[in-house]
Amino acid sequence: MDPSKVTVPALKDLTIDNITENVIAINSQNPDARFKYILERLVVHLHDFARETRLSTQEWMAGIQFLTSTGQICSDVRQEFILLSDILGLSLLVDSIDHPKPANSTEGTVLGPFHTHEAEHMSHGDLMSQDANGEPLLVLCTVKDVDGKPVSGVKVDIWETDSSGHYDVQHADRTGPDGRCVMKTDDEGIFWFKAIVPVPYPIPHDGPVGKLLIHLQRHPMRPAHMHFMFEKEGFDHLITALYLKNDPYESSDAVFGVKNSLIVELGKVDKATADKYGVKEGSALMTYDFVLVTEKNSFDLRSENSAKALEKLGRRVKIVNGLPVPELD
Amino acid sequence: MDPSKVTVPALKDLTIDNITENVIAINSQNPDARFKYILERLVVHLHDFARETRLSTQEWMAGIQFLTSTGQICSDVRQEFILLSDILGLSLLVDSIDHPKPANSTEGTVLGPFHTHEAEHMSHGDLMSQDANGEPLLVLCTVKDVDGKPVSGVKVDIWETDSSGHYDVQHADRTGPDGRCVMKTDDEGIFWFKAIVPVPYPIPHDGPVGKLLIHLQRHPMRPAHMHFMFEKEGFDHLITALYLKNDPYESSDAVFGVKNSLIVELGKVDKATADKYGVKEGSALMTYDFVLVTEKNSFDLRSENSAKALEKLGRRVKIVNGLPVPELD
Repeated sequence: MDPSKVTVPALKDLTIDNITENVIAINSQNPDARFKYILERLVVHLHDFARETRLSTQEWMAGIQFLTSTGQICSDVRQEFILLSDILGLSLLVDSIDHPKPANSTEGTVLGPFHTHEAEHMSHGDLMSQDANGEPLLVLCTVKDVDGKPVSGVKVDIWETDSSGHYDVQHADRTGPDGRCVMKTDDEGIFWFKAIVPVPYPIPHDGPVGKLLIHLQRHPMRPAHMHFMFEKEGFDHLITALYLKNDPYESSDAVFGVKNSLIVELGKVDKATADKYGVKEGSALMTYDFVLVTEKNSFDLRSENSAKALEKLGRRVKIVNGLPVPELD
Repeated sequence: MDPSKVTVPALKDLTIDNITENVIAINSQNPDARFKYILERLVVHLHDFARETRLSTQEWMAGIQFLTSTGQICSDVRQEFILLSDILGLSLLVDSIDHPKPANSTEGTVLGPFHTHEAEHMSHGDLMSQDANGEPLLVLCTVKDVDGKPVSGVKVDIWETDSSGHYDVQHADRTGPDGRCVMKTDDEGIFWFKAIVPVPYPIPHDGPVGKLLIHLQRHPMRPAHMHFMFEKEGFDHLITALYLKNDPYESSDAVFGVKNSLIVELGKVDKATADKYGVKEGSALMTYDFVLVTEKNSFDLRSENSAKALEKLGRRVKIVNGLPVPELD
């Protein structure tokens, strides 16, 4: 770019007190209002963080090295930056902002770093975990809308660890997906499958995020849970999980995902259910009725929340492509 | 860690409005007051950034991917996170905070990602660039304290690009260090060497940071400059650079490093100087008198600034190991 075309004031003699406005000025030459707004808030908070902590050069370098090693340990099957976002509460926060839920719908929670796009499509009743050491679990669920009407044809992604607390992708010698599947709800909004009883497990803690947790004197454990993701046109994308009641880590989840409404108590399969679903009487049973919100409902709620949040900053908001940007004065 | 030993309130049902205080609570179990304070401000600003922008899951994922690729392009000779910090103004800000300068001393500026620890020790008068295409430059400098007294035995690190605008480490086929050296000031605080006239150059822009600059409609150019770093016990570490007057990028440096007090006008070597230093008459000449601040002077100024900054946040400060932490109430 021709330097004579730079339209911002001379960027010279920048100080602790004036650098922020100048960086925002040169970042504001691009015409993408949303991107401009995100970069503005990013620079404000990044700079305020340094000003308020009086960040030293040595600490800054430790941060640079931490971020570098976090990036370098990432691979096709490991996402350390998502882990970092998870243990800092950012993931749960972003999900809460992006997918606001009315009181009568199923709450969302963290996606985590272990969702993949290679799960097999399965039919109702299929066994989605090949782990012979796991305790067999029958899972019976429905998906409805907020008016109680069954929602058919919903794509449901399900994933859980094996009985050792590892997802398939964490095994170097795996030959294909296991402990995960994709299925669709039937005309009555029902989906059901066979799995294993989830167990508590540590998030991967042999990398930079694990070292950070140790320094913070935090444990890396997640309570036992099974992940679910729901997609159907016209409905807001729901990323959630079900947690087992009375897990030792129920109140100190390393990634802040537990919500009371998502805690389930496992039952036992009775004779009639055993006969109907072809499982052993007395085996573990998990049931849940998920409730989806329409895209419109979610959009309206999100817009309302956005307007309030930007008002707090003293700015009026307009919504562009569903996301807030400040109105020009 | 035994979950029963977690001393914070139950981390359950966290929402947009209460997640920040809960993440801070569980991060505050560690006894390192400074680390605790840094993590507290980090979490506050990270969360406020998401709340104020109403960050979407898609944007969050774009951020995760950006940080991942920034880490992955880093190598022994490339530091993309420092580049990112540079173009967001964080590097200059941190240097300004950590190395406050009284009015009568030499200002600091960005370190950049190209300092290495492998430069050769050279003697005064040595040629520190082997680039035959560069325009020869004689550099004559002194180092003094704020009272005008020469400072001897200062370790000076100097580095610059070759005439093509690349540092030695950017050449895949390099055989050793070039365009960089380390020397010591003599009893009169003098150091001098032969180099080449610096040229403007783009920061590496074939990676994630370069893509970000394009999206921001910013150019990647730095005005012509030579880096200097000064170290001597009892004096504050000075990281600075000299910029050439009238460079086309003087007012739009991609990393915000230019300060008027660091801009120099090149002179021409006269007959007497040519004879004295063994260079050609008429060749380019750069002179500068650097002024170092004592460690104590810098420490006091930094502490004073820290107290003011924390007062703004409504907190009294105490200084621990030279860095501020809030006083306990």
